[in-house]
Amino acid sequence: MSFAPTPDPPYVAVVFTSVRTAPALDAPDAPDASDGDQGYAVMSRRMEELAAAQPGYLGIESARDGDGRGITVSYWTDEAAAAAWKQVAEHLVAQERGRSAWYAGYRVRVATVTRDYGMG
Amino acid sequence: MSFAPTPDPPYVAVVFTSVRTAPALDAPDAPDASDGDQGYAVMSRRMEELAAAQPGYLGIESARDGDGRGITVSYWTDEAAAAAWKQVAEHLVAQERGRSAWYAGYRVRVATVTRDYGMG
Repeated sequence: MSFAPTPDPPYVAVVFTSVRTAPALDAPDAPDASDGDQGYAVMSRRMEELAAAQPGYLGIESARDGDGRGITVSYWTDEAAAAAWKQVAEHLVAQERGRSAWYAGYRVRVATVTRDYGMG
Repeated sequence: MSFAPTPDPPYVAVVFTSVRTAPALDAPDAPDASDGDQGYAVMSRRMEELAAAQPGYLGIESARDGDGRGITVSYWTDEAAAAAWKQVAEHLVAQERGRSAWYAGYRVRVATVTRDYGMG
């Protein structure tokens, strides 16, 4: 992945941990992944594009196991920006679809990053 | 995955995002994964066991793509507990091995969780 180009702390991380209802059928580069996964791959890409267009968006990092366990972390300038993204209309539709079809379970944790470091 | 059984906020999340140096060869249930991945799978499991034995440990969630991109989030009662885990001797050895052999790049973000919710 490309790491999210976050600034010096503080900033906000939204950690979304999830388990899909079915084995992940959605290779990120699949030409048409909408036929086997209840529209998940298409909506997932759309939500990443839409998030990137919101005020206060800093970046996103995501990983999903072959068995459907996934973690996506989106980064925001502050809590207000993260909260505003949660309320974007098209995102609300995706959240409802997530609860009813895509996810067997999930956790969302909103956190303020106080320290960071890395390599590479 | 089983979600980490975190308490009501606040608590601390350490978000570790990484890219492996080589394609992930380490199925979690491989009987001997030490021969193709430079000891990564064995050390990874050992570190999860060791972390779970530390004061202030709350749980861990992890996902890794087939192409070596991974996110692991460990949860701690407070920043002091997270900082103490970073300094555990056997963990310091693993960190050095990570920098020199296992990871092409990584980011660590230490964050205070202020809100959380979920389903399932």
